[in-house]
Amino acid sequence: MKACVLYSGGKDSSLMATILKRLNLEVELVTANFGVYKSWIPAAKSAKALGFPHRVLKLDKSVLDRAVEKIIDDGFPNNGIDFVHRQVLEAAAGEYDIIADGTRRDDRTPKLTSNEIRSFEDRNSVEYINLAGFGYKTINRLASQLFILKKERSDIHNNSDYEIEIRYFIDKIKGKGESSRFFPEHYQTRVIGWK
Amino acid sequence: MKACVLYSGGKDSSLMATILKRLNLEVELVTANFGVYKSWIPAAKSAKALGFPHRVLKLDKSVLDRAVEKIIDDGFPNNGIDFVHRQVLEAAAGEYDIIADGTRRDDRTPKLTSNEIRSFEDRNSVEYINLAGFGYKTINRLASQLFILKKERSDIHNNSDYEIEIRYFIDKIKGKGESSRFFPEHYQTRVIGWK
Repeated sequence: MKACVLYSGGKDSSLMATILKRLNLEVELVTANFGVYKSWIPAAKSAKALGFPHRVLKLDKSVLDRAVEKIIDDGFPNNGIDFVHRQVLEAAAGEYDIIADGTRRDDRTPKLTSNEIRSFEDRNSVEYINLAGFGYKTINRLASQLFILKKERSDIHNNSDYEIEIRYFIDKIKGKGESSRFFPEHYQTRVIGWK
Repeated sequence: MKACVLYSGGKDSSLMATILKRLNLEVELVTANFGVYKSWIPAAKSAKALGFPHRVLKLDKSVLDRAVEKIIDDGFPNNGIDFVHRQVLEAAAGEYDIIADGTRRDDRTPKLTSNEIRSFEDRNSVEYINLAGFGYKTINRLASQLFILKKERSDIHNNSDYEIEIRYFIDKIKGKGESSRFFPEHYQTRVIGWK
């Protein structure tokens, strides 16, 4: 059975993929995209560096529209990103029997509750797996033992998080730089190969 | 760094050990015991069959006394078993930097809350890992792909759960068969080798 790991090129989703691969599952790394900006390219590069097959899961642009609407209404991105993640999971469930992501024990957004996970699994007859058993200290240590990591300021060219396409679209409809009102600058760790 | 996996010989703790081993950690399987009944023997056999080092972590008999008191007062075992598990984790934290167990996403008892996990990690400067990212369907499938499993009625000779020594002690102080008032009969799946 093939497992889909929702993939950003970061250490969490790379570790999730590594665990499933080493448990002998066939793993495919999947990055969602709305067709607005090719934000999946950094993830595809990380996947290639690790030797995993990678594909883009095309999502309906209406999901992006609604997420952006939520974020502008709320004044902060969490609910919009949560909404996108749930839509991505549902889309992946149409194509895979096992769906995993890199959500950690201490992650806040996006994160499914136990009830949402049960409902997601039952409605779609799929299995959902994440990194909820691991805290950030463990993930940092394991990732730095397994992967060559690059720490850098996150930008439109080096990041495949949902955030990138959302920001691109907000800047496009609201004016250049407008997305900075909702998303703070941040540093990220990208996986660029095996150690 | 050495990781301690609290080990019963069942599929959950065996899978946890396998994941950590395959992430290149040095894994030691550990079964707690109060010195009242040698309930660790089935776990030691499973560990040997999988080629993992195994040891017994001796716990103070006062922990067993207090657990049994709770169980008799409550009329059901959950709180007593939770108490034992927490004491075992604290004892393991005195000897290891990484402590793992086979708690799944859908387990109820014993299970730490997120706040308890954070407190446990911070107070002891350890990392705690479990299988909270995996549901029972996934664990059953992975375990049956990885391990030779034996399904059987759980009894004093084939099980290393906390329950066994607790029951032995209740029967000893309250009279033969008395522990059946608190613990229902159940079937278990024991790991007896690699596939």
